[in-house]
Amino acid sequence: MEQIKILLDENEIPKQWYNIQADLPTPPKPYLHPATKEPVKAEDMAPVFPMELIKQEMSTERWIPIPEEVRDVYRLWRPTPLYRAKRLEEKLNTPAKIYYKWEGVSPPGSHKPNTAVAQAYYNMKEGVERLATETGAGQWGSALAFGTCLFDLDCTIYMVKISYEQKPYRRILMEIWGAEVFPSPTKRTNVGKKILEKDPECTGSLGIAISEATEDAVTHEGTKYSLGSVLNHVLLHQTVEGLELKKQFEQIDVYPDYMFGCVGGGSNFAGQCFPFVGDKLKGENPDLQVISCEPTACPTLTKGIYAYDYGDTAMLQPIALMYTLGHDFVPPPIHAGGLRYHGDAPLLCKLTYEGYMGAVAYHQNPVFEAATLFAQTEGFVVAPETAHCVKAAIDEARRCKETGEEKIIFFANSGHGHFDLAAYDAYHNGKLVDYEYPIDLVKQSLEKLPKI
Amino acid sequence: MEQIKILLDENEIPKQWYNIQADLPTPPKPYLHPATKEPVKAEDMAPVFPMELIKQEMSTERWIPIPEEVRDVYRLWRPTPLYRAKRLEEKLNTPAKIYYKWEGVSPPGSHKPNTAVAQAYYNMKEGVERLATETGAGQWGSALAFGTCLFDLDCTIYMVKISYEQKPYRRILMEIWGAEVFPSPTKRTNVGKKILEKDPECTGSLGIAISEATEDAVTHEGTKYSLGSVLNHVLLHQTVEGLELKKQFEQIDVYPDYMFGCVGGGSNFAGQCFPFVGDKLKGENPDLQVISCEPTACPTLTKGIYAYDYGDTAMLQPIALMYTLGHDFVPPPIHAGGLRYHGDAPLLCKLTYEGYMGAVAYHQNPVFEAATLFAQTEGFVVAPETAHCVKAAIDEARRCKETGEEKIIFFANSGHGHFDLAAYDAYHNGKLVDYEYPIDLVKQSLEKLPKI
Repeated sequence: MEQIKILLDENEIPKQWYNIQADLPTPPKPYLHPATKEPVKAEDMAPVFPMELIKQEMSTERWIPIPEEVRDVYRLWRPTPLYRAKRLEEKLNTPAKIYYKWEGVSPPGSHKPNTAVAQAYYNMKEGVERLATETGAGQWGSALAFGTCLFDLDCTIYMVKISYEQKPYRRILMEIWGAEVFPSPTKRTNVGKKILEKDPECTGSLGIAISEATEDAVTHEGTKYSLGSVLNHVLLHQTVEGLELKKQFEQIDVYPDYMFGCVGGGSNFAGQCFPFVGDKLKGENPDLQVISCEPTACPTLTKGIYAYDYGDTAMLQPIALMYTLGHDFVPPPIHAGGLRYHGDAPLLCKLTYEGYMGAVAYHQNPVFEAATLFAQTEGFVVAPETAHCVKAAIDEARRCKETGEEKIIFFANSGHGHFDLAAYDAYHNGKLVDYEYPIDLVKQSLEKLPKI
Repeated sequence: MEQIKILLDENEIPKQWYNIQADLPTPPKPYLHPATKEPVKAEDMAPVFPMELIKQEMSTERWIPIPEEVRDVYRLWRPTPLYRAKRLEEKLNTPAKIYYKWEGVSPPGSHKPNTAVAQAYYNMKEGVERLATETGAGQWGSALAFGTCLFDLDCTIYMVKISYEQKPYRRILMEIWGAEVFPSPTKRTNVGKKILEKDPECTGSLGIAISEATEDAVTHEGTKYSLGSVLNHVLLHQTVEGLELKKQFEQIDVYPDYMFGCVGGGSNFAGQCFPFVGDKLKGENPDLQVISCEPTACPTLTKGIYAYDYGDTAMLQPIALMYTLGHDFVPPPIHAGGLRYHGDAPLLCKLTYEGYMGAVAYHQNPVFEAATLFAQTEGFVVAPETAHCVKAAIDEARRCKETGEEKIIFFANSGHGHFDLAAYDAYHNGKLVDYEYPIDLVKQSLEKLPKI
């Protein structure tokens, strides 16, 4: 019987992360300071991040060593299995071969701990005692709670109030790992206090929570801030996925024709595909298609513009060159909360702008239809975010059925949906709305781009 | 670095289940018919179960082949990893070595699909079109929904109404896999109708749900019933765990001194330990301690009596010789719903009665304290049921610290707690009650044992 799980041994966990900055034809444009609009320097970031992460953010070294202490924690769930989706292929009756790498086996249930553990480690090494961060539905917060717990750091999480109240499960998960979690806006910060004075009933937003966490970090000795996506060092840490994937494909002598991944901030898909995009940059696999999958309701890469914009609504974060729908844009309330970001990782955007990567966008209902078909054939119930690239993979496999092509299709199965089952329930009961691309909102929002 | 995950390749999934009945010094006492009190014959079970499962129930063959179609599904998550709990050991500063086998990687998140898949397969082979079953909080129901989905059977699940209403997540999971789920009592059965006539507000019980599922099966052509624990064939299917475990221990040249597992009906722990208890029966490892872990609130093995009793409250199921607290006993509402059964698997009970296995009981709070320590060191958040044997393993490791013994401690990590986080929340907020052994209730209940 042909193998369906391609496993690696613990000692094959990569010893270095891959930094795609070393292989870019032209260097990425610098971040700009939100106030001065001058290029951000290392010392500007020092109040917020530890030096080692700032170095990684700006590094052009191709290989960055993964500390043994980080690899030691990775061993709790890594290397993650690469699956051949045989049952799905049979159901689709496609000549294509479908593969997925399953990150849902990590204790927090997604790819997020790949960077959370690394960030906690570097902060610990530099004497930081506490990390502050924000979280929406709680994917990132739970990953950072897990990471800080293992390196004996305290962890303070500003969780968007409406999620704190409506989705208690990930909050409880964070608390099991020892984090303190506050519904944002809080009275712990000046930002929060001001907002609550104006609107005591404010249910919060990711933008507000980011501002609170940042303020907490810069106003407390021994505290730093931590971000779960978008930044170069976060993408770097996630390449542990793609480097494992390369070994796994080599083991079975396969190279993908298509790679699909969902993109919210972009760190997971970047982590999976950058080692392969690196090959593309060297001209080694010109035919490989690398496609980001996003929601029609927040179509950053497919409908946004490539421009300098603020990373956050509050305009406190650096300005970055990226695809954006405008920092003011608030997407419709789709269930894939992790894909509701107005921008995307600058490195991924640059590679998309230059044609090395593509993008597609989907409505909610077909996305959940695909995820349900996947669950009914392969068993695993994936996160609503992940479901976007399941949809892409299934569409491509169906196309191959029409043409008879035996293509190799890969998708990045970034996490389980155990805390998102209400979304599946809404789908089954016909209650999911397929929001059209909110073009007027985006136009309004794009008018507020900073003038650079 | 010493390995912490001991993995097996897919082709090492066992090809046969181990039937401990072949190695018992004396044969087990037969089930008795609930009405006639005569030994149950194969034909008595035929309206309820397919012939192959009835044969397995009564078989004394040592090895029963695992069909290739079942092994093929097992490959989606099996072999499951055996972990060395290095971080937990370091935290406890114990010379003991702690190992656990992690069944939480299965799509439904527990050991239950090991038998659900097999049962669905045999029913499909014999032309059954639909399976009916009961479920409490939904562990078993979700596993059977998964199993039937993969073999294209319909699945009807009677879910205890209070759980259906209070715990929608596992209900949604069952529906994703295509099952129809009804809050029991329903108007679909005579049993249900009678109960609702008397008490329209009845919130249901596992006993009622069993009665409804059984009635559904015997009154519909092409429908059979399926049980998730207790019976010999269920324990048999679960030995796939223990046989893998033996290979994994052999691979690192280790043999356990202690084996701990939580016991509700007993199938998971039987599955892990029977291949080792089989060695014990042959006198090969007299010093191995095999200990069932149960709640103080429902202490079947530690405080029950060894007697013939009905398998269910409604006295419709066969009478079996087992440890029991009386079929009428309703345990206090502890969070480990899967451990709230008045009896235990007859085979496990017999081996306990004859001294090959032991048992301990714990209160809720120390159990969740242990599970939290485990989560904070090893990462994984385990089910409340599983937490009982985590407690036992930690206690033993602490004892080893006192004595300096380098014992090998194993516990059966049977599933994740992703749908049970409210219980952890209650623990953290000091809201868990440590129910005393309800001795008066048990005394009353034991007065109603059948006279055999």
